[in-house]
Formats: sequence, C-alpha cells, structure tokens
Amino acid sequence: MSDKAARRAKFEGAWTRIRDELVGYLAGEDMPKEALEWFTKNLDHNVPGGKLNRGMSVVDTAEIIKGAKLDEDEYYKAAVLGWGVELLQAFFLVADDIMDNSITRRGQPCWYRAPGVGMVAVNDGIMLEASIYYLLRKHFRSEPYYVDLLELFLETTFQTEMGQLIDLITAPEDHVDLSKFSLAKHSKIVIYKTAYYSFYLPVALAMYMTRVPASYVLDGKTVEPYKAAMDILIPLGEYFQIQDDFLDFSAPPEILGKIGTDIVDNKCSWCINMALAVVTPEQRAVLDANYGKKDAAAEARVKEVFEAADLRGRYAKYESEVYGRLNELIAGIPEGPQPATLKRAVFTSFLEKIYKRSK
Amino acid sequence: MSDKAARRAKFEGAWTRIRDELVGYLAGEDMPKEALEWFTKNLDHNVPGGKLNRGMSVVDTAEIIKGAKLDEDEYYKAAVLGWGVELLQAFFLVADDIMDNSITRRGQPCWYRAPGVGMVAVNDGIMLEASIYYLLRKHFRSEPYYVDLLELFLETTFQTEMGQLIDLITAPEDHVDLSKFSLAKHSKIVIYKTAYYSFYLPVALAMYMTRVPASYVLDGKTVEPYKAAMDILIPLGEYFQIQDDFLDFSAPPEILGKIGTDIVDNKCSWCINMALAVVTPEQRAVLDANYGKKDAAAEARVKEVFEAADLRGRYAKYESEVYGRLNELIAGIPEGPQPATLKRAVFTSFLEKIYKRSK
Repeated sequence: MSDKAARRAKFEGAWTRIRDELVGYLAGEDMPKEALEWFTKNLDHNVPGGKLNRGMSVVDTAEIIKGAKLDEDEYYKAAVLGWGVELLQAFFLVADDIMDNSITRRGQPCWYRAPGVGMVAVNDGIMLEASIYYLLRKHFRSEPYYVDLLELFLETTFQTEMGQLIDLITAPEDHVDLSKFSLAKHSKIVIYKTAYYSFYLPVALAMYMTRVPASYVLDGKTVEPYKAAMDILIPLGEYFQIQDDFLDFSAPPEILGKIGTDIVDNKCSWCINMALAVVTPEQRAVLDANYGKKDAAAEARVKEVFEAADLRGRYAKYESEVYGRLNELIAGIPEGPQPATLKRAVFTSFLEKIYKRSK
Repeated sequence: MSDKAARRAKFEGAWTRIRDELVGYLAGEDMPKEALEWFTKNLDHNVPGGKLNRGMSVVDTAEIIKGAKLDEDEYYKAAVLGWGVELLQAFFLVADDIMDNSITRRGQPCWYRAPGVGMVAVNDGIMLEASIYYLLRKHFRSEPYYVDLLELFLETTFQTEMGQLIDLITAPEDHVDLSKFSLAKHSKIVIYKTAYYSFYLPVALAMYMTRVPASYVLDGKTVEPYKAAMDILIPLGEYFQIQDDFLDFSAPPEILGKIGTDIVDNKCSWCINMALAVVTPEQRAVLDANYGKKDAAAEARVKEVFEAADLRGRYAKYESEVYGRLNELIAGIPEGPQPATLKRAVFTSFLEKIYKRSK
C-alpha cells in the first residue's frame, strides 16, 4: 500500500468510530430502531466516499505544525475535526443536490433520489450539520479553544451559504442572463462558496488544535498566523476553483475523468466571465444566444468564442501570476523550529498538489 | 392598546433592528445588491408574522427571574435571544413546508412556493439558522455564559431534527401504516420535535442571561434549576401538543379558527395513538381502512371510532392529571426573593395560558 493509500485508510478507520459515536448518541436518547437505521444510512451514504482531501488536510496540517508524528489521541482529535469538515461538506452537497435537481453524486444516486428518501433529505442534511457540534462537544469541550472551533465552523457555514445564495440567484439553470455575470461576482461566489470551507477551515482547525496562538513574534517579526493563513488560503482556494472551471472547458474528458457541462448548465464559471470581459460585441451576441443551452451545437459555438478569446493563454497567464504571488506570500512567513507556529510547508503542500494539475 | 399588544409591539420593534443587523452583516461582506434584497425578503417573509409566543417568553421569563423590569440593554439582549428562537423556528418551518409539500403558512404562501423562490428555499432556511449564531456572537461574545447559549441552541436544533426524523418516517403522508404508531412513539416525537425548542429553550436562554447558576441552595434545599426547569417544561410541552392534537379533532372550526386535518393527513396524533391503544379489533379495522384518506366519509368513520373510544373523556382525564402533576412540581420549587433563582411564576404563566384553552 502506498503512503497516500495508507494515510487514507487510517483516516477512514477513524470514520467508523465517529459514525458509531453519532449513532450511539441517538441510541442513548432512546430513538426508535428505524430512526437509528435511517441515520446510519444517511451518514454512510453521504459522508465517506469523496476524495477526503479537506478532512485529511486537517490531520496533515496538524502534523506539519507539530513537526512530529501525532500520537494516538492527537490523531483521533484531528480526525474528528477532519470528519467534521467532511460532515459539513456532506450537508452542503445533500442540500445542493436538491436545489440543483442533480441525479448522481460520487457515482451513486444523490441522497434525495435514493429509494424511499425524497424530501426527508432536507432534514437528513441538517442532521449531518448538527452532528458536527455533537462531536465537538464530546471531544473538545474542556479545551480552551473549544469556543474558537464552534465559531469557526459556524461562521464558515454562514459564509458558504452566502456564496451559495449568490450563485443560485446569479446563475439559475433555467434562466440565462449573462448581464448578471462578472469576474468580480465570480470571485465572490468562489471565495464564499468554496475557499473558506475547503481551504481556510481545515487549516485553521488544525492551528487551533495544535495551539497556534493568535499572534507571536519570530525573527523580530510579529506574526498574526490566522490572518496570514487566510491571506494565502483564500486566493489559493480561488485559484483551485478557477482551475477547476478552466479544466471543465479545456481538459480532454479521458484525462479529466468526466465530461465538462458548465457551458450547457449555465454555470457562472471563470471561463464565461473572462470571455465576457474581453469579447467583441459580435462574439458577445454568440455567447448570449448559445450559453446555457442543452444543445451540443450551441455548446460548440460557445467553445469557439472561448478559443478565439484566447482563454487558454489568459488562463496560463493567470496561473503563472497567482503561483508566483502565492509563493511570495508563503516565503514571507517567518519560520523557526518552534512548535505551534505556522510552517510554510502547510501551504506549499496545497500549492504543489494544485499547480498545473490536469484533472 | 392592551398590555399584551404593547408587549408584542415592543418585541416586534426589536425585530427591525435585528433584521438590519443581519442584512448589515452581509452588506459588510460586500454581497451583491440582489443577495441583500433576497436575504431581506427571506427574513421578513419567514421570521415575524407568527404568534411569537416562543420568542416573547424569553423576555417574560427574564423579567420574572430578575423580579423587576428589564433595563433597555437587558431588554434588547433578551429580545435577541427571543428572536433567535423565532429564527430557529422559521428555519424549521421553511424546511418542514418543503418536506410536507405544504401550500400556505401563516396565511401566505410557504416560502418555497413564493414567486421565484423554489428550492433556493433550502439554502434560505439554512441562512436563517446561521443568523442565530451571528447574533449570539455579536451580542454575547464577551459574556461568561456565551458558550452555554451556543451549546443550548445547537443541542436543541439536533433534538428537534431527531423528532422530525421519527415523525417523517413514522407517518409519511402518502403511506398509511398504523402498526408503526404507538403512544410511546408519539410522546418521543412530541418531546423532541416540539417541547425542547418551544418550551425548554426559551426559558433556559432567559435563565442563562439572568445568570441563574447551575445549582444553588435555598430553604436548605439544593436546587439544580436547569434540570428542574426541564423536568417541568418537557411534560408541559407534551401536554401542549397533546392538547393541540385533541383540539384538531374536537374543537368546532369556528372557535379553533381552522379546520382540523390530522386524520386525512395521516398525522401521528395523540388521538389516533390513544384510540389504537384501546379499540376493539373491529374498530381497529375501521381505523386501518379509513385513516389518512383524503375523503370526508372516511374521516367521519374515523371520528366515530374516536367518539366510541371515548377520546373526549380520556383527554379530560389526561388533562386533569397532568395539570395536577405539573402544579405539584411547580409547588416543589423553593422560592425566595433572591434574584437569579428560579421562580414558580415562570411555569405558572405557561401553564395558565395552556390549561383548558379552546383554540
């Protein structure tokens, strides 16, 4: 087993225990057998089975900051926080799939389309969210940073829902209006809907757990590590999503592993927003007439405009610039052997996974 | 203006300020104008406009415990907690209406049926929930009981969702199976789905705000006031809901102000559960054949069985017993002039509003 597969297997092992704790809570409240079975299915269908990058990055970050292997207790605590992020994501996905009328997710039916589930999925999603706070209370209540964890999860949840709101009202699947789109709005959607919960949340959780203080002095420089982490992770998350949008348009399906549908789905993607910012009035008319149409010929016409507007070149330029800028920010973090201080490797490990990925 | 109307008007006045704080938060995050407008409509459509009993009982309880009128700052803080309960309720109702496929709520279309809303309502409901924690952070962050407020809201939310889950899988509107029903399950549903958030939550919030300690000694007796409050408020909430179920069946529509639909809607109501516990096999067959049918003749046959099973007499007996039991529990609370201790009037004010109500 590769190192990566072993790390994943260990993280998945913690899930079984966490799932049992959650079902055990309901059992302890004397919930009827059918409710326990339903909740177990809800957890197992929706929480594991993704790429687990977000959850595992809590464990990885904690280990980098500690500068040594986590002991068993530390590992489990970090895993609880990591699975908390995965529970939050599962909650968002269950709700998003209902709102987007989606069919499948991670190679299986969306939860609301699973046999016998239907709109009970709304309540099930909310129970996934509530599960996070049960786990935090159970495992972190006596820690001085308990309230920081609560606030971080709660605030991140609100931010993500704001991002989801802008996205939903800017780009409803059934009503195309490109005048609502802009690169500024795209940036807002991406940062709120994705970057906070996928990038800042896991790292900040690990920082609290490893007791990184609100500020410290290193090399004669005052560091505000949570702010420094956010200043890097938010543009990093934006870069990740812009890349995702670009790959949806540009990557060969056999490499990407799926067929891009952003154009036919009227998605407020980086590609359309960048195109809108640079096209001629004639090209704009082509986009207005063809974007968001469930029609391969219309999609091809949009792609032609994207090529003519040199999205490939513009993306390469963006990627190179953001990569340089992020590396500078990372290099500006003062580093020493002290534990409980920020380490550059926290960020380079993200950046190197993302830079020039092809799928 | 009556005293009651004046109190309501004052509480509603606080809403305007709270709503502006919430919209101001999104404005401060530079959300686009359409998102601010949407969020404002979401708040105004879903949060005020109910009976406000839950929210106002936070203010009333705080005043009773203090033993004097709240000053302006205290009033606003209590109102923030009260509107927090109303936000929680609004979140539940928006979600419940989607799950129950309901048409109207409080005399207007359900939010998900309002023009142009649709399934965006799922995210809107969740934003109402998130709003609670923004308000708590803004107004209570420096209070020593801040974490108690967070935990109380979070735990109550989970309890309510558990109750909703049992209800949804026990009594789906489109599949009648009375073998799933029982008085024990009814009690569980009612306590988890209603009693915790409607009765215990508002009182416990007011207790934290007025700094009622976890335990104290009075008249030589050790009081655990939160436990004592729960021991009264949970059966009180159960009584309230049983009465609600009974009125749905028994009250004349011109007095109740609506036409009861529990029988045709396959509701897991106290009436059907009490009937199931006492009927003959012949009567049971009538219930199995006619309960949950959208058909006035079927409904009438169910009502005949309810009458034959003497539900009116059984309800009167239950009400008299529970009223006696609750009065005894209330009388057992040691009371003195000390502020920040539990007062019997907290509970009698609820009980007298409920006892023998006709609508």
